[in-house]
Amino acid sequence: MTEAPEMRRGCFLTVEGGEGVGKSSNMAFIADCLRERGITVRQTREPGGTPFAEAVRQLLLDRESAPMPDEAELLLIFAARASHVRDVIKPALARGEWVLCDRFTDASYAYQGAGRELGEEAVAWLEQWVQGSLRPDLTLLLDAPVAVGFARADQRGARDRFESEVEAFFERIRQAYLARARAEPERFRVVDASHGLQAVQGQIQALLDDYLKQWQVSGTIRND
Amino acid sequence: MTEAPEMRRGCFLTVEGGEGVGKSSNMAFIADCLRERGITVRQTREPGGTPFAEAVRQLLLDRESAPMPDEAELLLIFAARASHVRDVIKPALARGEWVLCDRFTDASYAYQGAGRELGEEAVAWLEQWVQGSLRPDLTLLLDAPVAVGFARADQRGARDRFESEVEAFFERIRQAYLARARAEPERFRVVDASHGLQAVQGQIQALLDDYLKQWQVSGTIRND
Ligand SMILES: Nc1ncnc2c1ncn2[C@@H]1O[C@H](COP(=O)(O)OP(=O)(O)OP(=O)(O)O)[C@@H](O)[C@H]1O
Ligand SMILES: Nc1ncnc2c1ncn2[C@@H]1O[C@H](COP(=O)(O)OP(=O)(O)OP(=O)(O)O)[C@@H](O)[C@H]1O
Ligand SMILES: [Mg+2]
Ligand SMILES: [Mg+2]
Repeated sequence: MTEAPEMRRGCFLTVEGGEGVGKSSNMAFIADCLRERGITVRQTREPGGTPFAEAVRQLLLDRESAPMPDEAELLLIFAARASHVRDVIKPALARGEWVLCDRFTDASYAYQGAGRELGEEAVAWLEQWVQGSLRPDLTLLLDAPVAVGFARADQRGARDRFESEVEAFFERIRQAYLARARAEPERFRVVDASHGLQAVQGQIQALLDDYLKQWQVSGTIRND
Repeated sequence: MTEAPEMRRGCFLTVEGGEGVGKSSNMAFIADCLRERGITVRQTREPGGTPFAEAVRQLLLDRESAPMPDEAELLLIFAARASHVRDVIKPALARGEWVLCDRFTDASYAYQGAGRELGEEAVAWLEQWVQGSLRPDLTLLLDAPVAVGFARADQRGARDRFESEVEAFFERIRQAYLARARAEPERFRVVDASHGLQAVQGQIQALLDDYLKQWQVSGTIRND
């Protein structure tokens, strides 16, 4: 029996930011940028990504008919994440694919930790317990003033339950995201998402090109 | 404005034990014993007790169609518990009612901590975060050899997903319950549940009478 050659684990890329900043709108663009450069991309979102996690997502969206405490919300999100990590993210990374995820644990810090004021200690404990050492390699933070995202989401029509919360809640979320980006500058790239879509995508493309060079240079074999 | 007289918080009583030992069969009997003595009893069960917690219970029972990691199972159970504690258990206790619950956090230690081998540290962290200082005042542990519970559950017909696991799993659960009872003798009362229903109920009635005397004597006003 010959041993399989060691394969480099894929890059785990997350897209973060407050309501309506344009995360979902830019997912396909990001995936295309990467695919044009020969990268196999697994596109996914949180909460979701597996049948179990999608069922949990539905519970989170059904809050009106079955209200839950804030603590329960955070626990559900990590229950869904445990499934997503085990059954989708880790296997894809191990196959050498890039995983591109619309929201991940930074959103738990921002929305539940800061927005709902559950504190970062609880989020940090759950992150460690559920994810072990798995963390995103690169996080694109789409940042815009709260009012900008609000206006865009308004136009889009349907508001989910997060959007019915007060503005101070969203301001706490924005500031928590920015503080996390400052604390981990090597992982985060902050995109000014207040501009039009083309300008935003120009920034994203430049950031990705830059990151890809770095990724290729640092291409030591990793199997974590 | 005159202050309301301080009211003594009710007693929080849980019924625990492995598969088919007779927990659910004895709930109405226990409630009746207490009501005969003039106590207002709120009977409930876990996971469940609120619309949200019942929805979570359904997810737990639907595991075949949407498989989940063991960590997710534990997180779902505590999400349901957060709701049950906040919306049912604490309000009833504060009104002075006794809460009688079919399974609670000891079951998480036994089933998820020991049975699924997630360890007690994770359960202990979640217990503290979700419940704060709330713990049962009295826990009746119905204990019987695994084979006895198995045989009873078999007769009952429908097997839920827990029952399809191997016997070693149930043996770990039984031993974890017994270890918890030894570690907290003031809270636990162990009932030999291998006997017929009448013998079991005789033991329960004697234990409750004994506990009630103790409860009345220790009746200092508590509002925790
Ligand atoms: N740069 C932009 N300029 C103007 N409109 C935009 C821009 N980016 C996205 N939009 C529009 O804003 C709305 C919200 O975008 P999108 O759904 O992508 O945001 P999101 O960050 O995924 O929001 P959510 O947090 O609700 O998931 C959409 O109608 C989208 O077409
Ligand atoms: N002492 C007993 N002797 C004989 N049969 C019993 C006894 N107690 C309960 N049973 C029967 O055993 C079966 C299981 O009882 P029950 O459903 O109350 O157990 P349980 O502990 O609630 O189980 P589960 O863990 O599945 O909820 C039922 O058919 C019940 O009638
Ligand atoms: Mg979106
Ligand atoms: Mg039962």
